[in-house]
Amino acid sequence: MKLSDVAKRVGVSPITISRALRNPEIVSEDLREVILRTVDEMGYIPNLAARALAGRHNGTVGVITPALHRPAFAGLMIGIEDRLRATEFGVQYSNTLHHADREAGQLKSFLMQKPAGVIIAGAESYDDLLPLIENAACPIAHITDLSQEPERLVVGLDHHAAGAEPTRFLLSRGYQRIGFIGGSMDIRSRRRREGYEAAMREAGRFDPDLAIGADAPGTTGLGRELLTRLLARVPDVDAVFAQNDELALGVLIECGVRGIRVPEDFGICGFNDLEFSAFTEPSLTTVHIPRYDIGYRVADMLLRAVRDEPPGEDKVDCGFSIIPRGSTR
Amino acid sequence: MKLSDVAKRVGVSPITISRALRNPEIVSEDLREVILRTVDEMGYIPNLAARALAGRHNGTVGVITPALHRPAFAGLMIGIEDRLRATEFGVQYSNTLHHADREAGQLKSFLMQKPAGVIIAGAESYDDLLPLIENAACPIAHITDLSQEPERLVVGLDHHAAGAEPTRFLLSRGYQRIGFIGGSMDIRSRRRREGYEAAMREAGRFDPDLAIGADAPGTTGLGRELLTRLLARVPDVDAVFAQNDELALGVLIECGVRGIRVPEDFGICGFNDLEFSAFTEPSLTTVHIPRYDIGYRVADMLLRAVRDEPPGEDKVDCGFSIIPRGSTR
Repeated sequence: MKLSDVAKRVGVSPITISRALRNPEIVSEDLREVILRTVDEMGYIPNLAARALAGRHNGTVGVITPALHRPAFAGLMIGIEDRLRATEFGVQYSNTLHHADREAGQLKSFLMQKPAGVIIAGAESYDDLLPLIENAACPIAHITDLSQEPERLVVGLDHHAAGAEPTRFLLSRGYQRIGFIGGSMDIRSRRRREGYEAAMREAGRFDPDLAIGADAPGTTGLGRELLTRLLARVPDVDAVFAQNDELALGVLIECGVRGIRVPEDFGICGFNDLEFSAFTEPSLTTVHIPRYDIGYRVADMLLRAVRDEPPGEDKVDCGFSIIPRGSTR
Repeated sequence: MKLSDVAKRVGVSPITISRALRNPEIVSEDLREVILRTVDEMGYIPNLAARALAGRHNGTVGVITPALHRPAFAGLMIGIEDRLRATEFGVQYSNTLHHADREAGQLKSFLMQKPAGVIIAGAESYDDLLPLIENAACPIAHITDLSQEPERLVVGLDHHAAGAEPTRFLLSRGYQRIGFIGGSMDIRSRRRREGYEAAMREAGRFDPDLAIGADAPGTTGLGRELLTRLLARVPDVDAVFAQNDELALGVLIECGVRGIRVPEDFGICGFNDLEFSAFTEPSLTTVHIPRYDIGYRVADMLLRAVRDEPPGEDKVDCGFSIIPRGSTR
């Protein structure tokens, strides 16, 4: 389907069609309607590759993330989409599935298509990305731990604090032997584990036996298994900070099966504040990350850069909050 | 960053760089290494817009889905990625968030970038897409209910049967007043509800009061709420077929709170066989959809079409299976 086919059907020259698509106001309203209807009916696709070659962007924002397939990404996605909805930009995502060696390739693939901008929503390793980021023809904005590279167009939070604070919270509720359980860890979850360890040391309660992990996705099934292993290793463990809410749900279920009373004899704190966490029995104490806001703000920051508007803040700390619920006393 | 900058740094002509990137075997191994290292260090991006304009595809497969943000999509995604991993193609996703009016725009956006192919993983409405599909310059493969358009390059299942079968299963276990609960419904979930109604009619047990829904995402919180409403309306309801496992988890939790014995006095069947469903107490009976296989096969089908290989089957029924677990007697 070519422009000339559309022109033939409408009965005007191809240049008229082309101009009408670019600047609708230069043709009469009647002709505009005929052209748009014909374009739709014939399924004509303007060649955006030509536009990209001519030096303009291709009208999309690319988003690269290691965890497009995990529930915790959903909130970020909705925030990004909501901010870009009323603009002229579409959104396309790619997923590295936590493989650091795929990040540079996917960023290159986006950049080769001349996007309006790119959002890197968590990277495993910035080392291979920095030359690409520095030389990119479009703005690149980041969602990441605030201690990480790069320094500009960043929205995120301090993941070390997001591990230390819930540990201190559990200590403040009188739990003493607090375990840590995690599945396969990216750089942000490793920072949270370091935060947990720092808080335990600070309280004089650090014990390496209390932290247990597995190189597998952090699922409900893994949560049940890890609590079982932790209880065998440290029978007097009296609380758990779980790396995510799926693991925490598994811990809660396993406590139920074993007759361990939550929150009286055992405290549970999850991470992410997923939708189900408010509705379990007891409901799960967890750490809320303002994912929607993070997505919305990073998209807004990117938009300003694309439009050459002043960026406002260049590095935004969106913070986190502990949501105390029924699984802690 | 241009090709000539790389050439200058290496000390050869731009055409040598260009040829070495396209056909590495025509330059010496030493020179190849120098070129590749320099390209990496300088963050050079070959201009794929030029390639797309020259009539070749841009090296990516686009995937459009209404539910990129839902956990049930994860399995499809991993299947698609696994099939395409060892190929030269990258994968990019876009999300319509169940808005039918965004589908044509997103498909156009992909097609304008000249992808190698597109996968439409569930569409709300094919009516607006058919002209685009018929005129597309690249192959388009589909994941959908098998009763829907289009007819070619389709992998999916019969969602009507996937609603009728679990209802018959609950009847076969002696439950009699079987309710249906659902959140906001796309075309496939509406087909499953029709399947539920057909099976209930067939058994002479149809009662419109037994089916209850809400125009909201099918979450655990909604599951608890809908069971509460259903019990108020039909106090002798003795089982529920829930449109997804998140809703089923909510029903299970609400039964626990009310002291309703599962599975003795009340049966629960979910849908999707999400990861947590095997690990609740009791574990959830559910309908397993081979999502990974569906993703893998649709990507394989698309690849064959991109490479002009024989398609094999043109329409594949991947089926479904009921997984009986502890929430049904």
